[in-house]
Amino acid sequence: MPEHARIAVVGPTGYTGGELLRILTGHPMVEVRALLRTGSEETVSLPQAHPHLRGVLHLDCVPYDESFLDGVDAAFLAVPSGAAMELVPTLLDRGIKVIDLSADFRFRDPAVYSRVYRREHKATALLERATYGLPELYRWRIRESYLVANPGCYPISVLIALLPLAKRGLIRPEIVVDSKSGISGAGRNRLEVGYLFTELFGDFRPYSVGQHRHAPEMIQELRQLLGEEPALSFTPHLIPISRGILSTIYCSLKEPVPLQQVRRLYEEDYQGEPFVRIVPDGELPRVKAVAGSNFCDLAFAIDRYSGHLIILSSLDNLTKGAAGNAVQCLNLMMGWEETTGLMEPGLMP
Amino acid sequence: MPEHARIAVVGPTGYTGGELLRILTGHPMVEVRALLRTGSEETVSLPQAHPHLRGVLHLDCVPYDESFLDGVDAAFLAVPSGAAMELVPTLLDRGIKVIDLSADFRFRDPAVYSRVYRREHKATALLERATYGLPELYRWRIRESYLVANPGCYPISVLIALLPLAKRGLIRPEIVVDSKSGISGAGRNRLEVGYLFTELFGDFRPYSVGQHRHAPEMIQELRQLLGEEPALSFTPHLIPISRGILSTIYCSLKEPVPLQQVRRLYEEDYQGEPFVRIVPDGELPRVKAVAGSNFCDLAFAIDRYSGHLIILSSLDNLTKGAAGNAVQCLNLMMGWEETTGLMEPGLMP
Amino acid sequence: MPEHARIAVVGPTGYTGGELLRILTGHPMVEVRALLRTGSEETVSLPQAHPHLRGVLHLDCVPYDESFLDGVDAAFLAVPSGAAMELVPTLLDRGIKVIDLSADFRFRDPAVYSRVYRREHKATALLERATYGLPELYRWRIRESYLVANPGCYPISVLIALLPLAKRGLIRPEIVVDSKSGISGAGRNRLEVGYLFTELFGDFRPYSVGQHRHAPEMIQELRQLLGEEPALSFTPHLIPISRGILSTIYCSLKEPVPLQQVRRLYEEDYQGEPFVRIVPDGELPRVKAVAGSNFCDLAFAIDRYSGHLIILSSLDNLTKGAAGNAVQCLNLMMGWEETTGLMEPGLMP
Amino acid sequence: MPEHARIAVVGPTGYTGGELLRILTGHPMVEVRALLRTGSEETVSLPQAHPHLRGVLHLDCVPYDESFLDGVDAAFLAVPSGAAMELVPTLLDRGIKVIDLSADFRFRDPAVYSRVYRREHKATALLERATYGLPELYRWRIRESYLVANPGCYPISVLIALLPLAKRGLIRPEIVVDSKSGISGAGRNRLEVGYLFTELFGDFRPYSVGQHRHAPEMIQELRQLLGEEPALSFTPHLIPISRGILSTIYCSLKEPVPLQQVRRLYEEDYQGEPFVRIVPDGELPRVKAVAGSNFCDLAFAIDRYSGHLIILSSLDNLTKGAAGNAVQCLNLMMGWEETTGLMEPGLMP
Repeated sequence: MPEHARIAVVGPTGYTGGELLRILTGHPMVEVRALLRTGSEETVSLPQAHPHLRGVLHLDCVPYDESFLDGVDAAFLAVPSGAAMELVPTLLDRGIKVIDLSADFRFRDPAVYSRVYRREHKATALLERATYGLPELYRWRIRESYLVANPGCYPISVLIALLPLAKRGLIRPEIVVDSKSGISGAGRNRLEVGYLFTELFGDFRPYSVGQHRHAPEMIQELRQLLGEEPALSFTPHLIPISRGILSTIYCSLKEPVPLQQVRRLYEEDYQGEPFVRIVPDGELPRVKAVAGSNFCDLAFAIDRYSGHLIILSSLDNLTKGAAGNAVQCLNLMMGWEETTGLMEPGLMP
Repeated sequence: MPEHARIAVVGPTGYTGGELLRILTGHPMVEVRALLRTGSEETVSLPQAHPHLRGVLHLDCVPYDESFLDGVDAAFLAVPSGAAMELVPTLLDRGIKVIDLSADFRFRDPAVYSRVYRREHKATALLERATYGLPELYRWRIRESYLVANPGCYPISVLIALLPLAKRGLIRPEIVVDSKSGISGAGRNRLEVGYLFTELFGDFRPYSVGQHRHAPEMIQELRQLLGEEPALSFTPHLIPISRGILSTIYCSLKEPVPLQQVRRLYEEDYQGEPFVRIVPDGELPRVKAVAGSNFCDLAFAIDRYSGHLIILSSLDNLTKGAAGNAVQCLNLMMGWEETTGLMEPGLMP
Repeated sequence: MPEHARIAVVGPTGYTGGELLRILTGHPMVEVRALLRTGSEETVSLPQAHPHLRGVLHLDCVPYDESFLDGVDAAFLAVPSGAAMELVPTLLDRGIKVIDLSADFRFRDPAVYSRVYRREHKATALLERATYGLPELYRWRIRESYLVANPGCYPISVLIALLPLAKRGLIRPEIVVDSKSGISGAGRNRLEVGYLFTELFGDFRPYSVGQHRHAPEMIQELRQLLGEEPALSFTPHLIPISRGILSTIYCSLKEPVPLQQVRRLYEEDYQGEPFVRIVPDGELPRVKAVAGSNFCDLAFAIDRYSGHLIILSSLDNLTKGAAGNAVQCLNLMMGWEETTGLMEPGLMP
Repeated sequence: MPEHARIAVVGPTGYTGGELLRILTGHPMVEVRALLRTGSEETVSLPQAHPHLRGVLHLDCVPYDESFLDGVDAAFLAVPSGAAMELVPTLLDRGIKVIDLSADFRFRDPAVYSRVYRREHKATALLERATYGLPELYRWRIRESYLVANPGCYPISVLIALLPLAKRGLIRPEIVVDSKSGISGAGRNRLEVGYLFTELFGDFRPYSVGQHRHAPEMIQELRQLLGEEPALSFTPHLIPISRGILSTIYCSLKEPVPLQQVRRLYEEDYQGEPFVRIVPDGELPRVKAVAGSNFCDLAFAIDRYSGHLIILSSLDNLTKGAAGNAVQCLNLMMGWEETTGLMEPGLMP
């Protein structure tokens, strides 16, 4: 077990890159060694990209060049889907452990990837070496993996919420997932009118209705857990805030189980999970209680009129939904205590 | 058809009261005659309560007293549920037409009212004279009514979205309604920590999960439309904005109907409706496009994975969801052009 | 006095264009005849640009072509500075009255314009025909003008606040103006990372410190009013909201005048002004009380420690700060009642 | 130098209390021993008050009782002004070091305290033992102090911005300070309509114009630094965000000094200051770059028209403006490295 690791972050100037650096600068076993940009030949100082990191980390973001990988133990890829699969083979060849935050290695079947992301997969041979990086589901595999595909933010919020019921086959395959996300999920490169402050302030809107790319990702994992084909309806929406996802999940139990028993089942399954918090009766998850932290909060209710089970799940899309979960995977891959550098609570108010 | 009406607003200092006054001051056939407070013996100037109305309407908000009702033709009740039923008998006795924005006269069955609002109904004899004030459903009855129960904001957004399919019996009774509302829906008298700016800023949270009072209101109307008992799951959430509701509705068709045909059906039904706008293909409703207006925007999608029909509906909870709809009812009750004073677009950006 | 005017809006797709159309569609004497785009050859439907105007105005935004000017009585130019002066000569030649919302005709001295806007003025011959469109100062001239230069949003908020004292020579020339504006002031075409929702949410920041283009505009008018050279310090800031400006103005009186007398002086000067509201003692202007309206709210205080006079001024940068003031000018130019179409209160909450 | 300290937080349920706990739970040398409420006899669990701290700190907030002080080394008082001076004598008698975040011990002259806070000072004998807790000014005294009065949030932002010029006597005493603060500065106990989300959303407003309690606090320190009586105009405003203060300070130099020399002077004075960051030329402080951190960012400009010097200063009112500065004082009082537990960057976006 190495006591220290030298880390490269590829794609440091976006929101996920910034969040990785915010976490990694507080991580006692990590030395951030290289900040590598793809898609731009310009060097930018870190505070230009992330003014909150001024004085905290003294490194420039430089154009990607393999020479900067010398001595690097692990790399985070915070680059767009499609760009990651170009980089991964080289990194693995150099013995560098990779946590890829793009979608490139999330699907086991390259045909699904092609259909969903509308491009050919260029590193299909590596797909079977990749582990879907959800510690709550694949902890033991992540520990031994050299290539971890960090899941999408919505799938993390939904799979954690469904795992205990799904793996026991207690729920019907018809599941409605209504998710709401802060705008940082759109990334920093969406220079479109629709993402201007003035357009989103005071607004709330759905997008990609009935066809979001994270749906097949959830379906891949749910199919395996349920042992049957899920009929998933997934609708994402934009909340006019920076950070946070709330997923409201409607499902029905195959056989009636009292709510308290459902809760107990979650408490048992998740009592050892450092980042899953079951919210007590009478309280409900809210985005603000997890913003800036690696926690995922869960609660349960039975609808008085339909009898449906409603599961509520909240997390920070940049932390447990992206960078925090990725560092959790790094900790596992390095053999470190899983919570290292990640126990910091979020920011309220 | 009177060319003019003298109006009283009971409960003028809350958000619904303010919105009524904003609309009524621009209404060419209305003279606002009295602003009557219940529950307080203090007179407040209108700009103290509503600084945006400074210089626009010169009337004080005075403690309720019947003497102020002399000569009044119609009254809006923007008082809490429970308080309205105390006032209505007197008003009707005086020949004053009443639009009640509370829940007191929304349920046909007083037992349902008692169960949902946890108090006895004190004016059950008037229930059968009350009309559920949804013009898109009960226009002809509203025209002849002296007592209109303005529907809840969520039910308006949901019923307009479901009417064309429900009344034709095309959808299954299992319906999931995931609604999101701006905070003004909580009113101005909720002096609780949870409604402070600092608590809600940057937050998003569900509330009354599985047990909101608007569910039985929707169920009452849907039961009648569907001709069978609906299995409705309804979850409301708080969006950190002032105004606006977006409802995301998941249902399934009894027999497959192509999306374009669903859309055509809505276009036919709603082509004469002045305040229902079908958003064109490729666009989606958003809260901001209706905020400050009396419009309700609708769109449709089929989920690629589950095949479910998803209906999206947006309106301003204070306007089409409350005060605007109430003025629309007034227009009908007075025999005026239904859109009088209501065609003003919302405010963007 | 024409009972009706046919209007063209050049630059209809931006925020000022949208606000003009929102107001003009409710204006009883105006027919919007043409929506003309410069800088793009693409026709867009109005709801594509302004979804809140769906169903309210049925006109496309088409590429600018002189043929659309036939029969037009007046035109609003909501185009960038630099573009307006290319269009104005043609419009005036056709006898069309022009209200230009750009900066092109605000400066009497073309050398100042060149220095501030870093381009040559191409229509200097028209400068003396242009009237600085502040009704509170130049009402009589606007009435007779064919070319009105609508002032900048900050100058309107500041000049209305200083007029009564400045024209009487009661204040010293050292004036500090600290202004704060909603983001819509930046317009819709600023597709820069800094204007993304996620960047501005939760932020507050100054910009153009010590060198904003609106400073020389204020100085031009203050110099004339004061009869001496003002020493103006002006700092604008961005508030993370859509609409509204608050200016906090620090000045000192040449000779001590009690606060109540200052207030009386303003009340006298502004009692006939339909859109200037003096906020009563004990209250203060706030952005939200004027948002969506053509009002400008004012209040006064003496600093207990320095003895300085502090004047507070709030308005909506898109309404009284731009489109509303422009329509007020149109009303004057057409000989109509000055408040026509403009008395609608703003939106609260 | 103790390697460890046991800490009590009195007043743990408010925003400052929550921020103290957020920081202290990540502080390697601190054990939080007691959470003591004054003004309430009710025990509340920590997550009830601060849901973001669920699972991070397992302590209840109990009614204040001296018995909980056994073994405590230092106490933070996050109670209202007026309440602190009741508690301090007992704490000091027990040998407990006190960092008081209220205003009770900020003024050297009890007459000033009485005038500003409208109550008698009940512990005047302790005033000379109290140190004004601004490490950038009184570091050596704080180290030896048993009673530190943590400064007000606005004074911290202003004094750090003025120190280098003021202590050298380079500026004139006429200073205009225009400050803007997030709403958390109002605390959690202001259950007034004006602090509801719906009232402040989309708003921006001044308050306490010309008479805020933090003005005399700044004046006390500036008088000493300048060696003459300052003529300070201070206006605070509310930004509709949770956290952050931006102060825009207008002053003039007694003799002309080039901007670059002003900057150099600050860089020299502050090069050893761990939490003061001079923002490079071409950039400006913004609230979001410091939110959640203990940094204070500064920049400078000369107004092109008036020649005035403008200093911009940003910090998080709850961190460097309150709890973070208080922990910085604790570190000094305990002889620890001053930055312990405080180097964490803020949260962006």
